[in-house]
Amino acid sequence: MLCCSSTEQFLGGAVATCVFQSIILKLESAKVIKSGASQNIRKTSENDAAQRHKNRKTPIRLEPFNAEPPRSALISSYVTPVDFFYKRNHGPIPIVDDIEKYYFSIRGLIKNPKDLFMRDIRMLPKYNVTATLQCAGNRRTAMSKSRTVKGVGWDVAALGNAVWGGVKLADVLELVGIPKQTSVTKSGGKHVEFVSIDKCKEENGGPYKASIPLSQATDPEADVLLAYEMNGKLSMLPGISNSKYSIIMPKLLNRDHGYPLRVVVPGVIGARSVKWLDAINIIAEECQGFFMQKDYKMFPPSVNWDNINWTTRRPLMDFPVQCAICSLEDMNMIKPGKVKISGYAVSGGGRGIERLDVSIDGGKNWVEASRYQKMGSPYVADGLSSDKWAWVLFELMVDIPQSTQIVAKAVDSAANVQPENVETIWNLRGVLNTSWHRVHVRVGHSNM
Amino acid sequence: MLCCSSTEQFLGGAVATCVFQSIILKLESAKVIKSGASQNIRKTSENDAAQRHKNRKTPIRLEPFNAEPPRSALISSYVTPVDFFYKRNHGPIPIVDDIEKYYFSIRGLIKNPKDLFMRDIRMLPKYNVTATLQCAGNRRTAMSKSRTVKGVGWDVAALGNAVWGGVKLADVLELVGIPKQTSVTKSGGKHVEFVSIDKCKEENGGPYKASIPLSQATDPEADVLLAYEMNGKLSMLPGISNSKYSIIMPKLLNRDHGYPLRVVVPGVIGARSVKWLDAINIIAEECQGFFMQKDYKMFPPSVNWDNINWTTRRPLMDFPVQCAICSLEDMNMIKPGKVKISGYAVSGGGRGIERLDVSIDGGKNWVEASRYQKMGSPYVADGLSSDKWAWVLFELMVDIPQSTQIVAKAVDSAANVQPENVETIWNLRGVLNTSWHRVHVRVGHSNM
Repeated sequence: MLCCSSTEQFLGGAVATCVFQSIILKLESAKVIKSGASQNIRKTSENDAAQRHKNRKTPIRLEPFNAEPPRSALISSYVTPVDFFYKRNHGPIPIVDDIEKYYFSIRGLIKNPKDLFMRDIRMLPKYNVTATLQCAGNRRTAMSKSRTVKGVGWDVAALGNAVWGGVKLADVLELVGIPKQTSVTKSGGKHVEFVSIDKCKEENGGPYKASIPLSQATDPEADVLLAYEMNGKLSMLPGISNSKYSIIMPKLLNRDHGYPLRVVVPGVIGARSVKWLDAINIIAEECQGFFMQKDYKMFPPSVNWDNINWTTRRPLMDFPVQCAICSLEDMNMIKPGKVKISGYAVSGGGRGIERLDVSIDGGKNWVEASRYQKMGSPYVADGLSSDKWAWVLFELMVDIPQSTQIVAKAVDSAANVQPENVETIWNLRGVLNTSWHRVHVRVGHSNM
Repeated sequence: MLCCSSTEQFLGGAVATCVFQSIILKLESAKVIKSGASQNIRKTSENDAAQRHKNRKTPIRLEPFNAEPPRSALISSYVTPVDFFYKRNHGPIPIVDDIEKYYFSIRGLIKNPKDLFMRDIRMLPKYNVTATLQCAGNRRTAMSKSRTVKGVGWDVAALGNAVWGGVKLADVLELVGIPKQTSVTKSGGKHVEFVSIDKCKEENGGPYKASIPLSQATDPEADVLLAYEMNGKLSMLPGISNSKYSIIMPKLLNRDHGYPLRVVVPGVIGARSVKWLDAINIIAEECQGFFMQKDYKMFPPSVNWDNINWTTRRPLMDFPVQCAICSLEDMNMIKPGKVKISGYAVSGGGRGIERLDVSIDGGKNWVEASRYQKMGSPYVADGLSSDKWAWVLFELMVDIPQSTQIVAKAVDSAANVQPENVETIWNLRGVLNTSWHRVHVRVGHSNM
């Protein structure tokens, strides 16, 4: 995590102008945005989305726009390029046009409600946090093969690892009088609700929303951000080679990922990292929105659409340990010989990856793969120099003489393991398929 | 968690005198204790241990004294009575005789080393934290049935839930100039090592020791305690019925559990909660002691005593989600009809228990059990009124018409699950057997 005392040094002058020009698409009145009148918030069109994402894997849906990259592209770098970062939306993508007039409000169970503009946000200390966001529905397609589930069909790439630049929510909440490390405000506020600009049918045309506990929001160590940058580049200052003096060149969020301001809740399912922030509400009970109360919950396999009682389960927050092989598809034809097995592993709640095991005989015998984050810096689970909120990439060279099933499973730093079989964690919404990842290789000896 | 500004209100006057008298066994010079000369630290004898623990299940070993209660006794109450709290020691139990002269030192990579006496500790704010401690070897006997492992053979009761009264380590470290939320001291200290008074053969006659990261030690929310009380009783003040005015009546640690002062690291394997504290060292690397570097690590099933490389694995810290049925033994003879299935579930790192599933057909179908901590207060995973570091008890009435296998498995609040089969997590030291807990019932229709 990198920190500087102010964003001014990054956003002033030519660089800032250039970056803004490349992002701002059209100038309109920001007042319009705050009115919530949907006709005045421009939305992406299907054609627009298709054009902007022509380098991507065929999108799953154009509106709302959902897409993931090919497996091999996903692990081509530790920090996922914006173009390869999965997108999960619940409504048309809003366009915020006039950044000078854009603001969000903080209201609810607090004494001093406030409207905050980007200039207010830029006055706060800026942090860069490397964090993997993962859709709770990642690997849903595989779960559906066991028994059909409801939801967007994702392969293994509905996640990405980015460097998020922004301010800590704990610092923002201090502006309205909530101190760090607060669990309950004097007025009884216990949760922080994020309301988006975008609208979706699940909320009957109302805004997408979600909440996290106030204790997490006010804990600086939880690294919850209001982010305005994604994947700023680390650059050396001219004439100074010492890395101590390198700076992050800003790269604002693009509108697909929440421009101008989004929430990033590290270690938690992506659904709580609300994009296009419109309002923050300090509330007594957790957010009652659709995606907190009637979606993104994990039920046991016995629950079906006839007997479901949504109130019996808590909204999903931290995600459990997960991994996937990305160097191979589900079914592969290969020549006999050496094969590189590579992929990612990640756990929620800031837990590191303690081990990554690969089997080339369907799970009978296992070999440990090597793990890495940044080149030149050995990865140590929960080490001070490791990115605690970020995935770990792994690789292993194996010899595959004959057709087989290759399996990968990870162990996190709290010794949590992945379940062996998808059937034991099957759930009707197809969330959190973290079962051992299995791919098949068929070895051909000719005509390949 | 209860807090009062000072322990004085609990330790002054007749109550304190009475409690101390029941604990202090013999007056000797405390100087002797600090000298480390083992002949002057009195140790428990085998006969002594047997006498003191005659109400317990047959101890596993008398020296070092290791014992666990019967399953049914373990879950007879939410807070485990001291007599039923498991004991895991690595050497003879030391006896600290002169409490007035007892002190521990804080040294290492800090500017101002200090010796602290109990009177210094009692000046700090006192907290009561309800936390479950669990031996990493809990349920080892069952793992050994799959393939023999090395270690003390524990059934399912090598854990207990107590109310620990003491001071926060974060407050203690401030006394030597280390602020809250510190990851590295100016002198490069990154870990906090706890050294015990007791000596053990694994350290070649040196003291038992372990460490935790400085960031955890200085985080008040991590609730790491130096505890001097265990299971103080909640009592009403005379004439005042409002629970707001109830107080905890102190009950000092007994010597089996670390008198006069022990570390309690909630959510972490018991081996890091060092008893009979003799010294705290602020160090650059984690503790190099035997139990950090050559024990309490989890290897994959492929590692055996011929190919083990201890340096490849990190010391175990947080424990993963666990549960066990305690109302039944491994093999049971019952009459057909209603049977109460009850037990405990617990997860490390402060994670709550989101679900507890029971199967009465060997794992094919599952029913959710009810969960509870305190009577009159509904248990909510990660709820503000729940004890985050404590276990959750569960129960379910089922009808058992015929002989079968009954299975229990838990899901924690980060959606972590237990592994289905012990074979996939088998490890040569037999730690962290968190596989689905299975018991067998044989239903007899006559002569029972």
